[in-house]
Amino acid sequence: MKQKRISDYGYRIGHHESGPRNKITDVPGVRVGHTTVEDGNQHTGVTVIVPGEGNPFLKKYLASAYVHNGFGKTCGLVQIQELGTLETPIALTNTLNVGKVADAMISWMIQQTKKEGEDVFSINPVVGECNDSRINEIGNRVVGEKELYQALEQVDTDFAEGAVGAGTGTICYGLKGGIGSSSRTLVLDGKTYTIGVLVQSNFGATRDLKISGKPAGERILEQIRKEECGSSAEDRGSIMTVLATDLPVSERQLYRIIRRCGVGIARTGAYTGHGSGEIMIGFTTANRVDTKSTCEVEACARIKEEKINEAFEAAAEAAEEAILNSMVTAKEKRGLDGARYRSLAEFLEKPGFLE
Amino acid sequence: MKQKRISDYGYRIGHHESGPRNKITDVPGVRVGHTTVEDGNQHTGVTVIVPGEGNPFLKKYLASAYVHNGFGKTCGLVQIQELGTLETPIALTNTLNVGKVADAMISWMIQQTKKEGEDVFSINPVVGECNDSRINEIGNRVVGEKELYQALEQVDTDFAEGAVGAGTGTICYGLKGGIGSSSRTLVLDGKTYTIGVLVQSNFGATRDLKISGKPAGERILEQIRKEECGSSAEDRGSIMTVLATDLPVSERQLYRIIRRCGVGIARTGAYTGHGSGEIMIGFTTANRVDTKSTCEVEACARIKEEKINEAFEAAAEAAEEAILNSMVTAKEKRGLDGARYRSLAEFLEKPGFLE
Amino acid sequence: MKQKRISDYGYRIGHHESGPRNKITDVPGVRVGHTTVEDGNQHTGVTVIVPGEGNPFLKKYLASAYVHNGFGKTCGLVQIQELGTLETPIALTNTLNVGKVADAMISWMIQQTKKEGEDVFSINPVVGECNDSRINEIGNRVVGEKELYQALEQVDTDFAEGAVGAGTGTICYGLKGGIGSSSRTLVLDGKTYTIGVLVQSNFGATRDLKISGKPAGERILEQIRKEECGSSAEDRGSIMTVLATDLPVSERQLYRIIRRCGVGIARTGAYTGHGSGEIMIGFTTANRVDTKSTCEVEACARIKEEKINEAFEAAAEAAEEAILNSMVTAKEKRGLDGARYRSLAEFLEKPGFLE
Amino acid sequence: MKQKRISDYGYRIGHHESGPRNKITDVPGVRVGHTTVEDGNQHTGVTVIVPGEGNPFLKKYLASAYVHNGFGKTCGLVQIQELGTLETPIALTNTLNVGKVADAMISWMIQQTKKEGEDVFSINPVVGECNDSRINEIGNRVVGEKELYQALEQVDTDFAEGAVGAGTGTICYGLKGGIGSSSRTLVLDGKTYTIGVLVQSNFGATRDLKISGKPAGERILEQIRKEECGSSAEDRGSIMTVLATDLPVSERQLYRIIRRCGVGIARTGAYTGHGSGEIMIGFTTANRVDTKSTCEVEACARIKEEKINEAFEAAAEAAEEAILNSMVTAKEKRGLDGARYRSLAEFLEKPGFLE
Repeated sequence: MKQKRISDYGYRIGHHESGPRNKITDVPGVRVGHTTVEDGNQHTGVTVIVPGEGNPFLKKYLASAYVHNGFGKTCGLVQIQELGTLETPIALTNTLNVGKVADAMISWMIQQTKKEGEDVFSINPVVGECNDSRINEIGNRVVGEKELYQALEQVDTDFAEGAVGAGTGTICYGLKGGIGSSSRTLVLDGKTYTIGVLVQSNFGATRDLKISGKPAGERILEQIRKEECGSSAEDRGSIMTVLATDLPVSERQLYRIIRRCGVGIARTGAYTGHGSGEIMIGFTTANRVDTKSTCEVEACARIKEEKINEAFEAAAEAAEEAILNSMVTAKEKRGLDGARYRSLAEFLEKPGFLE
Repeated sequence: MKQKRISDYGYRIGHHESGPRNKITDVPGVRVGHTTVEDGNQHTGVTVIVPGEGNPFLKKYLASAYVHNGFGKTCGLVQIQELGTLETPIALTNTLNVGKVADAMISWMIQQTKKEGEDVFSINPVVGECNDSRINEIGNRVVGEKELYQALEQVDTDFAEGAVGAGTGTICYGLKGGIGSSSRTLVLDGKTYTIGVLVQSNFGATRDLKISGKPAGERILEQIRKEECGSSAEDRGSIMTVLATDLPVSERQLYRIIRRCGVGIARTGAYTGHGSGEIMIGFTTANRVDTKSTCEVEACARIKEEKINEAFEAAAEAAEEAILNSMVTAKEKRGLDGARYRSLAEFLEKPGFLE
Repeated sequence: MKQKRISDYGYRIGHHESGPRNKITDVPGVRVGHTTVEDGNQHTGVTVIVPGEGNPFLKKYLASAYVHNGFGKTCGLVQIQELGTLETPIALTNTLNVGKVADAMISWMIQQTKKEGEDVFSINPVVGECNDSRINEIGNRVVGEKELYQALEQVDTDFAEGAVGAGTGTICYGLKGGIGSSSRTLVLDGKTYTIGVLVQSNFGATRDLKISGKPAGERILEQIRKEECGSSAEDRGSIMTVLATDLPVSERQLYRIIRRCGVGIARTGAYTGHGSGEIMIGFTTANRVDTKSTCEVEACARIKEEKINEAFEAAAEAAEEAILNSMVTAKEKRGLDGARYRSLAEFLEKPGFLE
Repeated sequence: MKQKRISDYGYRIGHHESGPRNKITDVPGVRVGHTTVEDGNQHTGVTVIVPGEGNPFLKKYLASAYVHNGFGKTCGLVQIQELGTLETPIALTNTLNVGKVADAMISWMIQQTKKEGEDVFSINPVVGECNDSRINEIGNRVVGEKELYQALEQVDTDFAEGAVGAGTGTICYGLKGGIGSSSRTLVLDGKTYTIGVLVQSNFGATRDLKISGKPAGERILEQIRKEECGSSAEDRGSIMTVLATDLPVSERQLYRIIRRCGVGIARTGAYTGHGSGEIMIGFTTANRVDTKSTCEVEACARIKEEKINEAFEAAAEAAEEAILNSMVTAKEKRGLDGARYRSLAEFLEKPGFLE
């Protein structure tokens, strides 16, 4: 899948190296899938992040969740915070579809686990959301079991960004938002590890948008007529951030790392408005919790705390670039009220923009 | 509705006076409804707590949530914690039904709000749960829109306790658990206020059960044959606690008050086991947030912090009594594996028990 | 040191075995020391818990802190919560002495570390407190460097309980409070581990006191004339709880464990009043963080989460017994206003009390 | 006091208007004082923020605290978070001086309150800190009672910024840091309110510094020889942020507002490194809590949540500008190891810098 991304426009975000795909799927085992629903006034969908091979309910992932601003309906955080584990894929969808998708995820997990001869009586589906009601007729809740299953069956290490899956109907800085991803690598004790981020972007006021610190939003506002466009005067909407890594970290360390995604958000210009649900969910593929193990004491590993700064920088940089990727790959769409939500690419293509 | 409750057995829990019904509905405006599903191997249901008259989305309730132990799937807490408001009725159901009931609550709120000429693009359904899989075939998720609507349409100030609604299939201290409620009154500046609690009880090991400090669980274990009964060796399951009040409190004060429900739980003997989802959700009918108000600064009220101790005691006492009421009103049920989950009433009826 | 403790009066608290001393020092390496200040109207002191051999700043302890009720002045929690480590001994003293003792702890740590050829530019002293102003003229702040150093130099695995050190002037359930301790053992993968608790007790209303669930406080109120005694009508004061273990746990697991000390508190009858600072600090001697290690990835271990229930019960039981030990070993003292704060032992010695 | 500030160099930070002084003291009642200690290798001090007229212990301020990154030793947060009140002035000093200054603040408050015929048995001093050990011989702890009292006696609405008081020895982005302040105004229901911020800046790596999004740090690194300077390769140190307002907000609202100071920090370029203590403390002069009031229910006010965005933006902008003010007003200083910590002003004075 070849899409033009922010780096293709010559912007280098941060100091750390990216992984080969510069996507969350650079973390070994992680795969992403989308189902996009485009039908009349429905412009929405679901995006799933599968943390790795095997059944996550039987062999759980160390995980953490952080609420940067809690105007949001994400489900599953209570248990992640208490137990420090993720036991399902993570799904992203629209605000009013969380219940339906959570229910569908329960079905999926029951089904998957039954294949291995085990029953599920309790499962904690993790479903995040953004509100796409300016583009999508959200009240109909058209994302259900069929859509979730399809996304889960099509997960891959390569995946599309932009106005796809859960990003189909989102708006970011008054332009078209969507799904975006990025990754960074770091070396500990001679071994290379990866931090990958995937975002569902749906936040920010146009005037605040910054690209590498440059006032992109202000330049855009000079070039478009306010009347015909959907550029938001206010910072509305939300951003969901999923961080994956193979770093051997504790839940506490993971918590510290995912908080730095907030720095990446701030670098794109927003101040995290009242109405924004900004939630970070992170997991590591190291230190897995095997429910079938009979050991009562289990070995695990953690990074030296003094080395965590590189992970902090990596998280901030990957989040910033993921947001920009979500915007630059998203094609223009019309709002239900006729407003135009343009693509950031349109402006980046213009010669001299931001110079 | 006349059911024999713990006070009818001569136990007085705590020092404070109860309201006239000794239920959460002693708080003016609060109503409760159940739908009970009994069908083959299905023994489950839904219980709803309506915070007051009028549409809660348009005129929100100050609210708070506290996670005493987070092995649970309750949804809606993120937003309550950030914004300090409740905008839907609270529903309780079984663990795997949370998604379905949350989705149904969204439908209900869209419908209700449309009647007042308003659209809903974002709503935060609050749905709590306990795991009733020892009595109910939980994987089928039989509680849906029909059941939720029915419960919401039948809310009343009087309501049944025990094995009804969300308590139909729950187990408490190895006996039959269920829905229970209690209330306490307190006087500030000469005016009487009420604190009401409703629980869905599904926790505790038999041996730990205490009634007014007396070792009821140990007595019970002397009287039943372990082989034929379902008395749990371990503290499993959960307890959902909903606290309502008309006290003029801030969200912070409310948070402090609902935490004391944990004292009530401890007084019944349990130590809050690993697998227990113990979540407290509280709201006040004072200080409501009118979304249609045009004032940019709104008047509210708070109780003097030095007077909060009475509310603390009231919350602890009402929670303790609500748990005992949930058990004493619940009739015996068989588990799916044939185990007997007896009624606490059976033992309390025996002459000399606990003397 | 032979003092009569709650078990010597025939009360068995909980189900788990105690360690050989039934004190926090059953955890290998942990030592405790007191300095008691008795001089005119000064009845106060300092108690220190040394987590193990060697300099804790150079080889830190995994730690966690939980605020059960935050009307308190304990310092050092911010860093424990962020970094999950303890780098000094823990000191307990009176409310207004926290600053002085924290400063003295800094001096001590600079001095100790200098002996090993290292400089200290930043250190996080952890100092907890209770308010002993009903017995001690607290405004004078008589606990300083001399007193802290003396306590640190005299730490031992054996130590006195009752009205000593930081417990010299405290009141508990209207009787004399003080320092108390207890321990529990548990077995994982065939190896025995210990959980030890030490409390500084200074909370509770007389009427609420329970011993093994029995209404001791009510019995006591029948036996004493209210006019002549200091039995509190209200739940005032605080309780500091320090939990030590050698269990290989993560910070998150430790956090879950120390929260169960609140169950132990509740079992003695109190509801955690508004004015109570109830703070739990826990550390493990496993999984230490060696600042001199050059590994960037460090091995650690954690217990299987499903096995944590025993640790929960152990923490609750040890906290309950530690409180009762603090009271039963504390001798009667007069308040500054002449009130008598009797010893719980006085009542337990009476034939037929609580039968 | 006339110092050249960031706005005097032509930089306009954000969109909102500043108050007349563009300092935290634009909030009516708020005053600031410093004591600077310059003596041999001692380059440190204390800065105090007095929240308003009258004794804060007798008439408390609604307050909130937020830990952005907890590698810090600030004391007093536990009680602020539980009770939502501030009852002393806030003091800032160096890391190892917190104990001494907290103890001195207790003395001061006892003394002040005695003047009004009241005794103090319990008081919660709030003391924040940054680590100035690269410039100041920190182990000597030279800030004590004399220095605190002097600062408290000299508080004024006008006050110096830069290398004064608690900012005497701090370093920011490898240049000289210090105390800085800024304010913003907003209008609700036709009335003007103020949000003021004061920072003690001591964080950041030179290369990360941004001014209005422009890469100031990278420009600076091109102009200085690394060997001779103290420009930090790593993000070390901390930043204390104090926010004052006269907005009628609840503690929850205040919490949300102070969190946005983190956006202001991010806008100056840093990613909040591991070793950084980043703590925000906020208070409002509205809604004060009168301990002598006999009302059991007290009136208060809150802003409409939908209007909070302006306060968010104001907090972010004021924090960003306060940091830049702290740097631009701070004169160059030598480190104890001879490194030069230059003034940002030196670079801003150069023609063409950042163009």
